[in-house]
Amino acid sequence: MSSYEMAYLYIGVSTVVGLIYGVILILVLSRVPVGEERGYHGNDERHLKDIIGIKTETKTRINHHTGEKDTYEEEVGPYHDSWDQVVWTLNKISTAVANGAIAFLKEEYKILAVFIVIFAVIIALLVDELGTFWTTGAFVLGALTSIVSGYIGMKVAVFSNCRTAYSAINKEHGLARAFRVAFRGGAVLGFVLTSLGLLNLAIILSIYHYFYIEDYENEVKKQEMLRKLYENLAGYGLGGSTIAMFGRVGGGIYTKAADVGADLAGKVEAGLEEDDPRNAATIADNVGDNVGDIAGMGSDLFGSFAESTCAALVVSATSPEIAESYTSMLFPLLISATGIFVCIITSFFATHIMEVDKADKIEKVLKYQLIISTILLTPALWALSYYVLPSKFNFINIKDTLTCIDSYTNITEVIINDCISVNKTLNDVAYWHAFVCIICGLWSGLIIGFVTEYFTSHSYTPVREVAESCRTGAATDIIYGLALGYLSCIVPTICLGVTIYFSFKLSSMYGIALAALGMLSNLAIALAIDGYGPISDNAGGMVEMIHLKKEVRVKTDALDAAGNTTAAIGKGFAIGSAALVSLALFGAFITRAELGEVNILQPLQFAGLLIGAMLPYAFSAFTMKSVGKAANQMVVEVRRQFAEMNKNPAYEPEYEKCVAISTQAALKEMILPGCMVIFTPIVAGFLFGSKAVAGLLAGILVSGVQMATSSANSGGAWDNAKKYIEGENLVKKSDPTFKEIKAAAVTGDTVGDPMKDTSGPSLNILVKLSAIISLVFGGFFTKYGGIIVA
Amino acid sequence: MSSYEMAYLYIGVSTVVGLIYGVILILVLSRVPVGEERGYHGNDERHLKDIIGIKTETKTRINHHTGEKDTYEEEVGPYHDSWDQVVWTLNKISTAVANGAIAFLKEEYKILAVFIVIFAVIIALLVDELGTFWTTGAFVLGALTSIVSGYIGMKVAVFSNCRTAYSAINKEHGLARAFRVAFRGGAVLGFVLTSLGLLNLAIILSIYHYFYIEDYENEVKKQEMLRKLYENLAGYGLGGSTIAMFGRVGGGIYTKAADVGADLAGKVEAGLEEDDPRNAATIADNVGDNVGDIAGMGSDLFGSFAESTCAALVVSATSPEIAESYTSMLFPLLISATGIFVCIITSFFATHIMEVDKADKIEKVLKYQLIISTILLTPALWALSYYVLPSKFNFINIKDTLTCIDSYTNITEVIINDCISVNKTLNDVAYWHAFVCIICGLWSGLIIGFVTEYFTSHSYTPVREVAESCRTGAATDIIYGLALGYLSCIVPTICLGVTIYFSFKLSSMYGIALAALGMLSNLAIALAIDGYGPISDNAGGMVEMIHLKKEVRVKTDALDAAGNTTAAIGKGFAIGSAALVSLALFGAFITRAELGEVNILQPLQFAGLLIGAMLPYAFSAFTMKSVGKAANQMVVEVRRQFAEMNKNPAYEPEYEKCVAISTQAALKEMILPGCMVIFTPIVAGFLFGSKAVAGLLAGILVSGVQMATSSANSGGAWDNAKKYIEGENLVKKSDPTFKEIKAAAVTGDTVGDPMKDTSGPSLNILVKLSAIISLVFGGFFTKYGGIIVA
Repeated sequence: MSSYEMAYLYIGVSTVVGLIYGVILILVLSRVPVGEERGYHGNDERHLKDIIGIKTETKTRINHHTGEKDTYEEEVGPYHDSWDQVVWTLNKISTAVANGAIAFLKEEYKILAVFIVIFAVIIALLVDELGTFWTTGAFVLGALTSIVSGYIGMKVAVFSNCRTAYSAINKEHGLARAFRVAFRGGAVLGFVLTSLGLLNLAIILSIYHYFYIEDYENEVKKQEMLRKLYENLAGYGLGGSTIAMFGRVGGGIYTKAADVGADLAGKVEAGLEEDDPRNAATIADNVGDNVGDIAGMGSDLFGSFAESTCAALVVSATSPEIAESYTSMLFPLLISATGIFVCIITSFFATHIMEVDKADKIEKVLKYQLIISTILLTPALWALSYYVLPSKFNFINIKDTLTCIDSYTNITEVIINDCISVNKTLNDVAYWHAFVCIICGLWSGLIIGFVTEYFTSHSYTPVREVAESCRTGAATDIIYGLALGYLSCIVPTICLGVTIYFSFKLSSMYGIALAALGMLSNLAIALAIDGYGPISDNAGGMVEMIHLKKEVRVKTDALDAAGNTTAAIGKGFAIGSAALVSLALFGAFITRAELGEVNILQPLQFAGLLIGAMLPYAFSAFTMKSVGKAANQMVVEVRRQFAEMNKNPAYEPEYEKCVAISTQAALKEMILPGCMVIFTPIVAGFLFGSKAVAGLLAGILVSGVQMATSSANSGGAWDNAKKYIEGENLVKKSDPTFKEIKAAAVTGDTVGDPMKDTSGPSLNILVKLSAIISLVFGGFFTKYGGIIVA
Repeated sequence: MSSYEMAYLYIGVSTVVGLIYGVILILVLSRVPVGEERGYHGNDERHLKDIIGIKTETKTRINHHTGEKDTYEEEVGPYHDSWDQVVWTLNKISTAVANGAIAFLKEEYKILAVFIVIFAVIIALLVDELGTFWTTGAFVLGALTSIVSGYIGMKVAVFSNCRTAYSAINKEHGLARAFRVAFRGGAVLGFVLTSLGLLNLAIILSIYHYFYIEDYENEVKKQEMLRKLYENLAGYGLGGSTIAMFGRVGGGIYTKAADVGADLAGKVEAGLEEDDPRNAATIADNVGDNVGDIAGMGSDLFGSFAESTCAALVVSATSPEIAESYTSMLFPLLISATGIFVCIITSFFATHIMEVDKADKIEKVLKYQLIISTILLTPALWALSYYVLPSKFNFINIKDTLTCIDSYTNITEVIINDCISVNKTLNDVAYWHAFVCIICGLWSGLIIGFVTEYFTSHSYTPVREVAESCRTGAATDIIYGLALGYLSCIVPTICLGVTIYFSFKLSSMYGIALAALGMLSNLAIALAIDGYGPISDNAGGMVEMIHLKKEVRVKTDALDAAGNTTAAIGKGFAIGSAALVSLALFGAFITRAELGEVNILQPLQFAGLLIGAMLPYAFSAFTMKSVGKAANQMVVEVRRQFAEMNKNPAYEPEYEKCVAISTQAALKEMILPGCMVIFTPIVAGFLFGSKAVAGLLAGILVSGVQMATSSANSGGAWDNAKKYIEGENLVKKSDPTFKEIKAAAVTGDTVGDPMKDTSGPSLNILVKLSAIISLVFGGFFTKYGGIIVA
């Protein structure tokens, strides 16, 4: 077996193992019996009374002395009489959430189908120029993979959330069991998505290799051909990223319209608790968590993975030594394959080795997942670099080299080698240089994760300061929260700066792509942790909605709080990787557009840079306002239903109306920002040429990273400051100031909602998508672009 | 008389006329008799009763039926018995404000004196290398000019505010008179500052020309010498800008600590109106308006003016044709001189031609000032370009040209010309190319002003939408306001992008500097409009504090509301010019550091770009948190005084304690961000060399502009949304929801306060100061910088 076949085998095995592991996890999850086959799963019939809440009714009595009316609460017995009833109710709610989520996805996919067709035609016309359909094909496959991954993730999430809730009921082992269920749910998303993404990419790559590579006159021609092949393959990344665009923006608007609407109408106005079943927006809120954080986040990170692999491939084609052996070319895919194996091992630490018997262990176990996978990956990736990469390699400017070769009439190997050595863009790169780049990315990711945790967890000073500032009202809460978000940009940016500097210095744009792949190498774990969050959030909501006692809610709350922090870590991770991916794509774009350099001391480049830096602002404006508008509609509807309820006590909240509002708003409002992101680089390239686009991309990147980081962290901090206050850590509930302080904190949280879950995460996509679009359309810009100025 | 002498004469006459006009305005102002010499100024004794508020006392009565205590207000007669008493009280308050302002300035200047000495030593050591003191001298002169201008502006402002208040009392002509007084007060600031700045710059320039220029072997050597001279002269800009740094940051913290503290403790907690004299923080709040908006804004724009002139001079030295005649070299100064003449003419429109007899005319008159001066300047600057500039000119790379010349043993004029023509960096620039650059800047400034007005005045949809969103509470108010700020970046950024593109294309970096000067050519009017704001704001505060009736307050409120919008316009203008100035300085820095290009596809440059884009965030975090901290102290103090007041009704608020808190906080908190801005480029240049600094500057510029624009406009919009709601435009005061809606709006306004008046405007300085520091230290970086990596 050749080393090339072995490499493919390794990739194949990793993806199959990953998929099988995902299926096993689903089977394990399905042992929690909340579906058709109801069972007890250790939930003892004797505990029934201890678990189920007591129903009260509001009665009126007349004070005989004063003649005034007075209301009081009277207990009328437990909410449920049997386990069957508990499971039945849980099932009902979970079905409502699942149906809402799936219904939204279906509606979204209908729109996306139209979009994919239109965009595929554009690509076929402008990029493939109807000669071939390589890019178009890759685009469609990428888009479909992203859709399937998102759909599976969502299915598993709505499958796991009710099981997490049910597991939490168990009196003795509730916390540990619920944690395992939620974590496994997230892990399914992680492993299925990475395996499927890698598998499809490997398949399309081998097909393209098979059909595309013709006989070539010399090594450099082969390189040129390979580079073109990989540029076509970049369509795969583009497909993934366009779906992610709509997933993130649409999902983000969906979830926050529901959340903000539910909070404003329910918490702030009616004084209800989170997830009170009387609040008509609760189901939509829970649906939103899945839509935004599972499907959206999943397709976002799938996009990053696909794009960084494509960027690495495009750049690696410019290295004669790497291009010589297909095995070395496959290096980017081998990194991800190794990641899958290591992540499977790591996940056992969470499910089998570290027992979550206390609430404060949850966050620790989740954090350890990142640390363990990072530590395990370090030697594994060293070994991989050592065995797969040439011991020394270089990068050349292919075009100049070909021109050089062609200038000779009698082409010999000596001439080719001479031309190559003249057109080197970097001195010898050793295999360990590449390893250092990967490691910079991998460990930067971990550091960014921890910094994010420091700034968004209420275990540390920053969030506590924000909570403290709620004493003087919502205004100071928001000022402190904004300042915190701004401050939290410093370390991640420096980490990225250092990673970029070393990767760039050591192996140019290939180094950047490797750094991105390094950061994403423990993607499966990152996604597991990330998916864990909305699953436990949903579980908490369900426990509240089926009226279980506080002691059950305490467990799901603990799971949820840890999920908030890991969500923030996940966002930091997503932003960091987006920045690296985007820079790698930027480099690949420069290669494709044959710019050679981007001198910002030129009119077009600088104007592009400035306008690029503005786009994240424009984009955030659109998405935030969309949330505001949709939330307003939601508030109006919830208010209407409350009024109905007051008139008629038998009135049941019409959850589906709120679901419909969120769905419609999300679908409608995602179009404009989506098109803005997609068409800005294309139009800019067509009108002003590649140089303007280069400036634009750099501007979007450097400004977008800051804005995404600060938005995510401000939002996370406000959310956890609110949790800190609700947990009576600042003042006791009995304190007369408690209510006011909490109201201030809720205001901050509400402001943070669209920032951390809509505009912030969508910026990742803006950053990446504009870069990959430019890469894919780079050839078009060079050929036809710059019709106004060049 | 040579054309060179004529040019100097023109500059001299313009500055003298400007200064005389300023003195005349002061004399006119002093005719309002509120000082030692009291008088009536048309305030008829018969109107006394109509003007003066009625004092009430809170009394307690016992309801004989229920035995419950009840309080009611009883009128106990007017607050004042005579005009003398009114004037005396006005004088007392105005003296308190003036003393607070001057005391702060003195304290600030003490710190600045130490700083100037230390920094002068650093410059003497690192830049002048103790050989000469050209840069050091220019730095000290620039710093002193900035200090003097700020001081004069402040003196005039505290001189005008009580006169504005007093004029507003007049029953028939109150509005028109008060407007004229406030406008003239602002105009003094504008004319004195621009004239003084230009005069000192012209003087130091002629001195340097006289001493510095030795015999030169050839034209190119002369150019090289001139370029060095102007690089030294850049110290003048640096001096102005460092003072502006502390003025903006210190002033910004001062004013918002007082304002936020006063609002939180007074408006939100105690339910008082703005400027209620029982609120101990009111005097500090009024002092703050002067400190931040007069002294801070003045030194900010003085810095822009000085820096853009220096940048233009440095770049113009690289043009053989311009360097040939000193008259053409003086072109940047002649633009400003022309500006002074045109602005004087324009100001008559406000004071003599357009009568402000109705409230809604105020904003119009102020806006017309900008329009008229822009229109008048257009032909004037065309004529200037036509007469002063060579009909065709070029720019060369001096270093390469000199190397080229030196490579010949026998240097002839032919050789020199050959070398020049080989090293041209641009094709022939015609005089009208330069004119187009100036005009792009001038008109961009106007457009930016109008866009800013559109987004921050409550006459238009955006602010009304924000006001509308207050119906659903503070959270939506803030979401909408943030989105509005982000959205408002689009047009100004595009304007700047277009200006940069054309200026760059037509005459390279010289064009950018000219565009900046064009935007600043109506600086005197911009400052007049800007200074008008805090003067009327203060006047309003005084009318409230001396207990005049609502009809007087209505007039000052109308003046104040227009001031809010013009303040926002002024901020847009300051940011736009800062961006252009910074880019011009960036170009001059590249020239000095001999970089030739800034290829961001290099490790150091890109890392610098990314980290640069982060700095505005870090900087905003520091300044916003400083305001939060100081405001908290203020709230505690005001609360303590309210408690005191409740215990003892005779207790008089101790205003000076609040003034002291603001002063101390501002002085303490300005050090860290100030040093961050000043030392970041120096340290970066020393450690990583000029390339890293180049990336850093570009990053700061493109990211800072967006953040400054969005912060200023979000803040302005919240402020005016609040005013819109307070003016009962949304719901009537009698509506049960009014109070809640207003509370939401006040929260938004409070969040916006530090954004629009502290962090936002300080970012201008960050953008400019880092660029001029790099320019001044550029030689040092080239010689000694890059000790870690180069």
